Amino acid sequence: MSWLPTLITKTPEEGYDLAIKLSRMAVKKTQPDDAARGAMRPDYANSADSLTQVSHVVATNFQTVAQANNFWRD
Amino acid sequence: MSWLPTLITKTPEEGYDLAIKLSRMAVKKTQPDDAARGAMRPDYANSADSLTQVSHVVATNFQTVAQANNFWRD
Amino acid sequence: MSWLPTLITKTPEEGYDLAIKLSRMAVKKTQPDDAARGAMRPDYANSADSLTQVSHVVATNFQTVAQANNFWRD
Amino acid sequence: MSWLPTLITKTPEEGYDLAIKLSRMAVKKTQPDDAARGAMRPDYANSADSLTQVSHVVATNFQTVAQANNFWRD
Amino acid sequence: MSWLPTLITKTPEEGYDLAIKLSRMAVKKTQPDDAARGAMRPDYANSADSLTQVSHVVATNFQTVAQANNFWRD
Amino acid sequence: MSWLPTLITKTPEEGYDLAIKLSRMAVKKTQPDDAARGAMRPDYANSADSLTQVSHVVATNFQTVAQANNFWRD
Repeated sequence: MSWLPTLITKTPEEGYDLAIKLSRMAVKKTQPDDAARGAMRPDYANSADSLTQVSHVVATNFQTVAQANNFWRD
Repeated sequence: MSWLPTLITKTPEEGYDLAIKLSRMAVKKTQPDDAARGAMRPDYANSADSLTQVSHVVATNFQTVAQANNFWRD
Repeated sequence: MSWLPTLITKTPEEGYDLAIKLSRMAVKKTQPDDAARGAMRPDYANSADSLTQVSHVVATNFQTVAQANNFWRD
Repeated sequence: MSWLPTLITKTPEEGYDLAIKLSRMAVKKTQPDDAARGAMRPDYANSADSLTQVSHVVATNFQTVAQANNFWRD
Repeated sequence: MSWLPTLITKTPEEGYDLAIKLSRMAVKKTQPDDAARGAMRPDYANSADSLTQVSHVVATNFQTVAQANNFWRD
Repeated sequence: MSWLPTLITKTPEEGYDLAIKLSRMAVKKTQPDDAARGAMRPDYANSADSLTQVSHVVATNFQTVAQANNFWRD
């Protein structure tokens, strides 16, 4: 099973969760070591600027997912 | 009730507020601890560069919301 | 009266000014204290990198406003 | 005469120059003091990262100008 | 054979992998020395902020690839 | 001869090269001194974060070029 079978989601909220998944996957593919990623968690989870940057990536991916779903208008 | 039932808003101003909500939700989902987020507030609320970055995220999300609403043209 | 009644402007220059307004509003909504924002002004107004970041936010918002106005082509 | 009468340009190169103008105008409107801006020039003109950030802003504005001109396809 | 014969991919997951390839190629073309790039790997693979920035670039390229593929809707 | 006669390219790879050219041109127009730019090269060519930022600018310009070419779908 693919980790990304489709960009289509039933609801905007599921689309937002997919945007978060897309944002994390690039990190995982660049640093595949689970322990290394876990060790970095306190660095960004307690830094306002780091969290803002994470939110920027999610916003960029959410644009893509929202467009794919025609903004769940229909 | 979903925190994000729709991207459609009645007015541009409501759309802007939704963009802010979208921007904050990624932070909340990455750092779910309310106290931890509260403790960081002075860090970004008193830093010009941090506030500019926050504004960039909002701008990115506002693009999505504005497109979803066909720019409230109709 | 809403601070953002519409994204439609008569001219590109007015659209650019609206993009600046949109960029500043996210800062204001995150740090509502006028004195606190005023105290930060020297920080970014005298930093080349801060000003570049401000310009990036304006550029992102100007994309939205320009699209809303069909690039003032008509 | 407006500094931005139109987003339409005859050629892609003129469109690129307009993107640079748009990028600089946000800086000028945030820091209107010519001397203050001039004093900052060595800061960014001799920093690789600052120049990359400037280029990012130009790229964002060039997207807008290129779309306005239908990518000069016709 | 071109390293980029097409932006069209069969699946969203392949599209995501292409976005990663596009993100790395700009680095490779700017710093063609394999050893130099390898030496930098610990710098970004162990920095939360660096990884977030990498993810932002992938998100931007994924927008392009997803649009090219009409979001794999068909 | 213009340095940017058109955004149309025959192939995606040529489009990517044009995106790199667009990214560098903003740097060149901001810092026209060849020697000054050359002196900065070690700064960014040996910094992972600098290279990621360069890649982000290329990604933004590649969006524009890919759209101009209708993603080379035809």
